[in-house]
Amino acid sequence: MSLRSISIPDILRRNAAAFGDRTAFVCEGTRVTHREHLGRVERLAAGLAQAGVGAGDRVAVLARNALEFADLYGAAAWLGAILLPVNWRLSPSEIAYVLADGAPKLVIVDREDQPGIAALANSLPSVAVYYGLGGEVAPFRPFAELAECSNPPPEPASGGDDGAVIIHTAAVDGRPRGALLSQANLVAAALQMTAAWNLDERDVGLIALPLFHIAGFGLLLGVQLAGGSSLIVPKFEAGVAARLVAAERATIFVEFAPMLGSLLDRAAEAGADLSSLRIVSGLDTPETIARFEAACPAARFWAGYGQSEVSGYVTLSPWRDRPGSAGRATHVNLVAVVDELDRAVPANETGEIVVRGPLVFQGYWRREADNAIVWRNDWHHTGDLGRIDADGYLWYAGRSPAKELIKPGGENVYPVEVERTIREHPAIADVAVIGVPDAQWGEAVKAVCVCRAGTTLTAAALIDFVGGRIARYKKPKHVVFVTALPRSANGLIDRAKVKEDHGRA
Amino acid sequence: MSLRSISIPDILRRNAAAFGDRTAFVCEGTRVTHREHLGRVERLAAGLAQAGVGAGDRVAVLARNALEFADLYGAAAWLGAILLPVNWRLSPSEIAYVLADGAPKLVIVDREDQPGIAALANSLPSVAVYYGLGGEVAPFRPFAELAECSNPPPEPASGGDDGAVIIHTAAVDGRPRGALLSQANLVAAALQMTAAWNLDERDVGLIALPLFHIAGFGLLLGVQLAGGSSLIVPKFEAGVAARLVAAERATIFVEFAPMLGSLLDRAAEAGADLSSLRIVSGLDTPETIARFEAACPAARFWAGYGQSEVSGYVTLSPWRDRPGSAGRATHVNLVAVVDELDRAVPANETGEIVVRGPLVFQGYWRREADNAIVWRNDWHHTGDLGRIDADGYLWYAGRSPAKELIKPGGENVYPVEVERTIREHPAIADVAVIGVPDAQWGEAVKAVCVCRAGTTLTAAALIDFVGGRIARYKKPKHVVFVTALPRSANGLIDRAKVKEDHGRA
Repeated sequence: MSLRSISIPDILRRNAAAFGDRTAFVCEGTRVTHREHLGRVERLAAGLAQAGVGAGDRVAVLARNALEFADLYGAAAWLGAILLPVNWRLSPSEIAYVLADGAPKLVIVDREDQPGIAALANSLPSVAVYYGLGGEVAPFRPFAELAECSNPPPEPASGGDDGAVIIHTAAVDGRPRGALLSQANLVAAALQMTAAWNLDERDVGLIALPLFHIAGFGLLLGVQLAGGSSLIVPKFEAGVAARLVAAERATIFVEFAPMLGSLLDRAAEAGADLSSLRIVSGLDTPETIARFEAACPAARFWAGYGQSEVSGYVTLSPWRDRPGSAGRATHVNLVAVVDELDRAVPANETGEIVVRGPLVFQGYWRREADNAIVWRNDWHHTGDLGRIDADGYLWYAGRSPAKELIKPGGENVYPVEVERTIREHPAIADVAVIGVPDAQWGEAVKAVCVCRAGTTLTAAALIDFVGGRIARYKKPKHVVFVTALPRSANGLIDRAKVKEDHGRA
Repeated sequence: MSLRSISIPDILRRNAAAFGDRTAFVCEGTRVTHREHLGRVERLAAGLAQAGVGAGDRVAVLARNALEFADLYGAAAWLGAILLPVNWRLSPSEIAYVLADGAPKLVIVDREDQPGIAALANSLPSVAVYYGLGGEVAPFRPFAELAECSNPPPEPASGGDDGAVIIHTAAVDGRPRGALLSQANLVAAALQMTAAWNLDERDVGLIALPLFHIAGFGLLLGVQLAGGSSLIVPKFEAGVAARLVAAERATIFVEFAPMLGSLLDRAAEAGADLSSLRIVSGLDTPETIARFEAACPAARFWAGYGQSEVSGYVTLSPWRDRPGSAGRATHVNLVAVVDELDRAVPANETGEIVVRGPLVFQGYWRREADNAIVWRNDWHHTGDLGRIDADGYLWYAGRSPAKELIKPGGENVYPVEVERTIREHPAIADVAVIGVPDAQWGEAVKAVCVCRAGTTLTAAALIDFVGGRIARYKKPKHVVFVTALPRSANGLIDRAKVKEDHGRA
């Protein structure tokens, strides 16, 4: 408890008191009220404490969305511990890297991922105990040992600027960095969301995105702050989601293309009523947004700009207000576009997007040198380019060359990492990986390759090679072979020229 | 500048960049854009710095609402200095007390109050220079010396939890205490307001309340955070206000009875169009609220609970959602009702209203012992009684006996102070001062008096006596004479019994 900040445990206790009998979560047919959720979190916090978890300790979770995932966010916050949610779509070696980097005391793994984690178990010295969410065999112990603890719950931690979650993202050297967010960050982001969308306890969020992603957990916590309920689905399936929206009268969800388009398709086929939706936000095509507006005339699609390092969105506006833009800065923070010397550039000129305010993260985990650079001159440097028009709307203009990033379906793919993998192929002499527009996923990975003399390599063979080594969503969708890559005077690959020559699918 | 908080100077610079050509303020025919306002604040900050004002120094202002008043808030924040706005309706001795307590380096006084302050000038050792806002003679120097400084503006202070303003309020011993609010408090309150009311740059606030009051400055800053404009009137006059609302298409104002009723009367007489109003908030009677809703069917009246110590409102809901209640806690903070041991009481039971969150003030100025008491157990104790119903609506239930307070027309009157003054009359043996309902002002001051044997005293004579010694709004409107006051077992006046017997006008 703290006089001047409210914490995640404060929100859970307030909800239990003010909205106790209302639904907090619906997941695969189970319905949990706010009062029940508080009880689950208190028991789990007691169980984690008994298992030796204290303030600052990391607790890793590798799981599809589930009630237990939501409970873990609350229970870790209760103890002042840090949740380390791991993207289960990563390759085994990437998962091993994230777990070694975050060095959790406990690891909690759902059924599907237990074999993969069991194979790593000897290589993670920080981990005291592994728990399984169903079907567990050694080394996994049943999660119920944690979740059904009968000890009295400890006093909740005070929240504030202590860490609450580490989200791995934003590799610049091909290795993801853990963005540490505090409870104060998360609560401020939730407040921004309730403000922008006027959320209250009648709102029902569809958590279609993974809870290991800030956009998934961010929506869940925003709806929780408002006293509303969240529909948790293990994984997004458009048909299931359409029926759930109709049955539970969902009001809001956040998506990346092509989720909304699929939802509209399945709802039309099944005659599912989507009219309860009032807000959908995310990244999508003008065509899909227009279809959504036609299907749900009372709803609005919201565009925004954000990243894990700023706790989610920092700009957010109805898409229709300025189609194509990423919206305007919300009141809670400052968003500017600056030149190399951090001077604001004039309206409509492109520069790096920088952010200041309570959503700025607590730093890359154990990367103090990176933090000093990314926070220079009291601005958080996003590594993204953009321009701000005369009315304050931000127009996203790609990644800064130092920090290229491709986003197929909302995932983060770092060209440098894909390039490093491609270079491991013996036939490859040089490579540049770029993002190209993609009708289905928004963006796709394209590799522009130079082969060694005397070798032969097909696109399909290279794609298979990469897909076997890193997460499959990172493998190139397109491969072209050229005789040489353009280079600028300093000898580096001229990425602008590569894009100019090859920036089509 | 600070990475994780935004300050008042940040807001002014953002507005100048994003909304530069839009109107920030209109005052007595003068129109100031956001860009011009930033320039005025920068020049004034430079002037204050040249006059020796630095971080933590107090700058007092005694003035009717004016553009310069808004500039002073910005310029003090720019320097990390603390504005000390003084209620000019106080008596000379009360004003002297507030100035001695706040110990400002500079005092800035409007034309009307210069004679009164000139009389105090020798008794305020902290004050280096007095400035006048027009018509000044010695010891007052022209405000233009500050406001038209040609030095370059200093770098703005970072804001955060350092003090920004001291508002004197909440006497428990008959002397007002200075509630210190930080920039972070004020910005959080402004954010709450933009969230609750969905404010944006098209909003136009009518600043009908004094800028020395948190409700007046709070609305101004909330509208400023949204990039909107504020209509500043030196003093509320219903006819002027009605014309201004119509001419400038005002969307929002905050009031205490009988302001809204008078505005509706004058607008009806003059045929002034009030249809631009979408939000009026404050304290008023059900009859006036119903009249307002009939006159402005697209608008809503909002009810709330607040005090200076929590930077304004902490609960806020449309009045019609639960007529008679003070609304529900906004998302940004926790509001609870507790017993003497700070345990939450069940729904619908009365206890003391306590608050936690970013709106809780930084303390009573130089009253550390009071702060320790008022913040015990990590809750701010408001000194007010209330109950919270099963749906979370707060119902105000009077002041805690330890901290009685009467609110005629939104002003704070402490019974203990009025009693102390009445006791100075030689004919008075005993007295209890209570608040009684008042059709015009919401509440009125009533004195229940016991006269000494052999004396005669009329109500009118006693009212004149009091009105000559303290602010005239504090003098009793009603006086009754009794032979004895009821006392409880501990020998103290039984205030509940006095109210039971005399709690009517």
